[in-house]
Amino acid sequence: MIKLGIVGGTGYTGVELMRLLALHPQAKVEVITSRSQAGCAVAELFPNLRGVVDLSFSEPSVNSYRDCDLVFFATPNTTAMSQAAELLEAGVRVIDLAADFRIKHVPTWEQTYGATHACPELVDEAVYGLPELNREAIRGARLVANPGCYPTSVILALMPLLANGLIDPGSIIADCKSGTSGAGRNASIGTAFCETTESVKAYAVSGHRHLPEIRAILQTIDAATDLVFTPHLMPMIRGIHATVYADARGPADQVQNQFEDYYRDEPFVDVMPAGSHPETRSVRGANICRLAVHFLAAAQKYVVLSVEDNLVKGAAGQAIQNMNLMFGLDETTGLEAPGMMP
Amino acid sequence: MIKLGIVGGTGYTGVELMRLLALHPQAKVEVITSRSQAGCAVAELFPNLRGVVDLSFSEPSVNSYRDCDLVFFATPNTTAMSQAAELLEAGVRVIDLAADFRIKHVPTWEQTYGATHACPELVDEAVYGLPELNREAIRGARLVANPGCYPTSVILALMPLLANGLIDPGSIIADCKSGTSGAGRNASIGTAFCETTESVKAYAVSGHRHLPEIRAILQTIDAATDLVFTPHLMPMIRGIHATVYADARGPADQVQNQFEDYYRDEPFVDVMPAGSHPETRSVRGANICRLAVHFLAAAQKYVVLSVEDNLVKGAAGQAIQNMNLMFGLDETTGLEAPGMMP
Amino acid sequence: MIKLGIVGGTGYTGVELMRLLALHPQAKVEVITSRSQAGCAVAELFPNLRGVVDLSFSEPSVNSYRDCDLVFFATPNTTAMSQAAELLEAGVRVIDLAADFRIKHVPTWEQTYGATHACPELVDEAVYGLPELNREAIRGARLVANPGCYPTSVILALMPLLANGLIDPGSIIADCKSGTSGAGRNASIGTAFCETTESVKAYAVSGHRHLPEIRAILQTIDAATDLVFTPHLMPMIRGIHATVYADARGPADQVQNQFEDYYRDEPFVDVMPAGSHPETRSVRGANICRLAVHFLAAAQKYVVLSVEDNLVKGAAGQAIQNMNLMFGLDETTGLEAPGMMP
Amino acid sequence: MIKLGIVGGTGYTGVELMRLLALHPQAKVEVITSRSQAGCAVAELFPNLRGVVDLSFSEPSVNSYRDCDLVFFATPNTTAMSQAAELLEAGVRVIDLAADFRIKHVPTWEQTYGATHACPELVDEAVYGLPELNREAIRGARLVANPGCYPTSVILALMPLLANGLIDPGSIIADCKSGTSGAGRNASIGTAFCETTESVKAYAVSGHRHLPEIRAILQTIDAATDLVFTPHLMPMIRGIHATVYADARGPADQVQNQFEDYYRDEPFVDVMPAGSHPETRSVRGANICRLAVHFLAAAQKYVVLSVEDNLVKGAAGQAIQNMNLMFGLDETTGLEAPGMMP
Repeated sequence: MIKLGIVGGTGYTGVELMRLLALHPQAKVEVITSRSQAGCAVAELFPNLRGVVDLSFSEPSVNSYRDCDLVFFATPNTTAMSQAAELLEAGVRVIDLAADFRIKHVPTWEQTYGATHACPELVDEAVYGLPELNREAIRGARLVANPGCYPTSVILALMPLLANGLIDPGSIIADCKSGTSGAGRNASIGTAFCETTESVKAYAVSGHRHLPEIRAILQTIDAATDLVFTPHLMPMIRGIHATVYADARGPADQVQNQFEDYYRDEPFVDVMPAGSHPETRSVRGANICRLAVHFLAAAQKYVVLSVEDNLVKGAAGQAIQNMNLMFGLDETTGLEAPGMMP
Repeated sequence: MIKLGIVGGTGYTGVELMRLLALHPQAKVEVITSRSQAGCAVAELFPNLRGVVDLSFSEPSVNSYRDCDLVFFATPNTTAMSQAAELLEAGVRVIDLAADFRIKHVPTWEQTYGATHACPELVDEAVYGLPELNREAIRGARLVANPGCYPTSVILALMPLLANGLIDPGSIIADCKSGTSGAGRNASIGTAFCETTESVKAYAVSGHRHLPEIRAILQTIDAATDLVFTPHLMPMIRGIHATVYADARGPADQVQNQFEDYYRDEPFVDVMPAGSHPETRSVRGANICRLAVHFLAAAQKYVVLSVEDNLVKGAAGQAIQNMNLMFGLDETTGLEAPGMMP
Repeated sequence: MIKLGIVGGTGYTGVELMRLLALHPQAKVEVITSRSQAGCAVAELFPNLRGVVDLSFSEPSVNSYRDCDLVFFATPNTTAMSQAAELLEAGVRVIDLAADFRIKHVPTWEQTYGATHACPELVDEAVYGLPELNREAIRGARLVANPGCYPTSVILALMPLLANGLIDPGSIIADCKSGTSGAGRNASIGTAFCETTESVKAYAVSGHRHLPEIRAILQTIDAATDLVFTPHLMPMIRGIHATVYADARGPADQVQNQFEDYYRDEPFVDVMPAGSHPETRSVRGANICRLAVHFLAAAQKYVVLSVEDNLVKGAAGQAIQNMNLMFGLDETTGLEAPGMMP
Repeated sequence: MIKLGIVGGTGYTGVELMRLLALHPQAKVEVITSRSQAGCAVAELFPNLRGVVDLSFSEPSVNSYRDCDLVFFATPNTTAMSQAAELLEAGVRVIDLAADFRIKHVPTWEQTYGATHACPELVDEAVYGLPELNREAIRGARLVANPGCYPTSVILALMPLLANGLIDPGSIIADCKSGTSGAGRNASIGTAFCETTESVKAYAVSGHRHLPEIRAILQTIDAATDLVFTPHLMPMIRGIHATVYADARGPADQVQNQFEDYYRDEPFVDVMPAGSHPETRSVRGANICRLAVHFLAAAQKYVVLSVEDNLVKGAAGQAIQNMNLMFGLDETTGLEAPGMMP
């Protein structure tokens, strides 16, 4: 049994980790911490876990995690980077669900997140935890940077196009639509029910924090890659729908096969039949990214539709997928539940 | 042109007053205050009012209202009671949309709201602003206590039954369902989109602040009245649906006529045909309470279904209705817009 | 491995059975039928099941189920009664998720459902599949009538009160709020998004089909039981919230203990601490009924709050719970997933 | 008083016309027809209009409209084209809210709508009813083709860019998000609450009917215009959010001024300050298109954000705006109501 710790378990990625791990046969959460909720039973804050999780939140401290095999940081950005080194030294592996180790170029990270990086020496070691890109490296990693929700949906949409040289890598536009759980579990007017339901808006059009992450990862596939990225807030809890546009280069008649081949052995990427339009609800609660690729002949453009549950394949589910890899388990262990429709 | 002031215009009743008054031909908002937003343009906070309201929020002070004919308090409870006296003295009439003057029995008010009343001497003078109950008194009032949202829906459902002696006045159960705008425009986790959508819950089962208000007003019709009141939070913005149960006393065969007669001349109470089930969306944005009365012969109970928009007939619309009465205007002025379906 | 058939798998209870059974280690769906969708892949209609369910819908016929150990009828009312006899004769056990076998008194059933019962001779044998009431009988049953969604939530709320003689059994009011999935997967204007979202309404106030079912089952506990039942439609997919009122008889100071004792060994009924207000979202996707009991001393009334997912504990989950009992499995097999929050 | 007829008043544009016209001081609906609902009171189908609209639906016939000054066709496509000629001959002006007269090139129309055009001789005369483009022609028109909802939002976003030569006209991508009321008031599984809420999907990626309309109108400004258009379905009732991308040509430093200048005198187009992100809810129920223009220097692309209520500025409100122009009224008459927030 893998012994797990969760740092900062009062947010949506924290409760989602616990929901998913409740069904995992080979891993168990032993410690969960929260500064604000220390002493409170987890199931009091999250009554869906009544009878399932018996833990209480404890004060965060590196000591409390020393007996863990792995610690998930489900914290805001800049928390993991100040504690990861000590944990790794103690032999505890780390998966950070926030952004601290996602970008290799530290000045870019520091500019993007407006902070000085607390342990740049670990950035190089950290593996970007997208199994479809880095599976082997993840297996051997001590420190995994779990990808952002938007980046997962956009990168998986583009990998077959870039890898097969099908597009002009500088022509990409990613128009993304996210449910509000992506904004986290916070007290703010901007995410209040009455302020978000029955409405749609774009935000951060001039530059969202996930843009440098997407760009950097895609440039590892094709160094010439650049993109426009526009996030939108949707009146729903879960789900990201990425609509990704790119100019075609060369013939497009094999693109459906190329997508299917590219992801043939991937348990958590589903290429739909030609002409499909995936719905975010089809992946609600499930660790799946579902894709459909369209080619617009008149415009000579590809349109890739990519949906995921931002809290699962875009966060907690992918983290467990990474954990499975790091501990030599079957990659799908505990992640077999299908999406919930309706 | 009636010159209006709004104290505390950053909440939902404030913006709703401005939305409705934008179409009022004989009244105009001249001053709007907010401590937190002083200096900010109203239309910056509420972009629906761009091009409609040119005012900026100013610092609250009694002086700024001296030229107004009427001031609406769209503030939290306990604000109006500390400023009303000075305004009345200056010849400014006052409508409080909060609870400060709704309950005549000051000790009950103080226990309910956990505060010492700042001007008990005005409580007697204040008129409870339910036109269907107190129209004549409102016409002459200097100070109106605008009813709560739940009380409006419940009292209007029960008035014909109590006035006609059709029910056991001690047998009432009011099971009420409210949209989340009733909780106000606040930064809180409890009203976040992800915490409220796709869910229903009861709250304050052991005693909600509106219960003493409902009881006190109904007892002016039948002194033996008492009730159980259970509020529930619904995943929608606007609307209250009150389902009111009471034991029948005497024959019920005329109840439809009795409801229709009771409200025949009321412009803002709509008695639906026998057997109807009103929907809250039918009154969205409109100053209407829509009722249907059912009699269950086997159980010898009445079930009255009552719907309103909590921000309109349950707050801002009713306040304007009261204003119209206080200034001798046609009661319906500025309030003719039908509900918005879909 | 238990071999399963599903008759009429194109509705919400059908897809929910498949979603839940996908994780069941000892049962497998072998046949699924649908007249309208025969030949269509299940995963084409329900893309959440892509990669999980490989079956296609086949034409319904008793023959196709002869090799099954158990058949679920996820059909409209009046289908199961015409096929159950032949299946039972062939040695196939049956769980009907519709209403055909829920009411023992055939004339009441016929009046309620406006049809002649096709096999009244099986009605007596059928076991009402509420494990908390009939566990032993279910274990030995060939034919189980799976309870309705409203009845499950209301009956579980009342059983401890009736069994302990705490209430006047004729004083019950059940004010129930249901998500729209309870109306099934149909093309109708009444369940269109634009007609149901952002609105609440009561329906069938004069008499809903679930009322005779609730009354009949509760009368097996206390023959004097009668109730008023008012269903309401909520703007959400899943979830029922029953708010149940009843007049107290005798002292109430032990009621919390009495509830906890009554359900102490029940894996799928969760009695919350005194003073709680359960949310429907806490049971989303989970086979749980979550209860809180309140006593209003002034009114001498109990208010029980009861929440469930109408598609799980109110339908498909309970059916699997019954299947587990019928086949000697651990009752919780395949039903351990916690609710999904947010 | 302008005498109005509405053909096909049982859909969402029909009820929206009635809601808005209820406040119009110089026009009155005299006749409303519906084949399916003939004899039914309008207010029975749309209870928001109880006490506001006293009409009943009548059988559709050209005769019944002979006394009208103007008839709105709120019908499905291909209805207006078969009745318009006779009405015009009788001296009745016509506004078609469907697509029959929007596209001048009849073969394109016939291919797009899969039908033979019933009166191609009127197509040339018909004026495309976008006042910001065709105000003078509308004033003198007998027959107005009211624009589609998507086209209105996209064309208004692009007009200042194209008119000022700021973009490569062949580089446009319009990624559009619409509420479900755009799909009309129909009984279909695809628009059921449980099938659309809490989900997002693209549709018609390979070609939506509004694409030829948008292209044709924009080509009247710059003949080289072409675009990719991707519609998405959002879980909300009202609102369209168009996110429009185009490659910059020449300097961009004046673009905010150019937008403000372009729309300075337009009562129903609101250019927000630089850096803004309009929300669809800010225009709910209001006849406004609200725009924000962003320039991405690194990508040398413009991103225009454009929001409207698809039923108002995208349909019924714009139709009334056209009516006002056709009858010499102030263009804003009856359309002054601000959006409804929250």
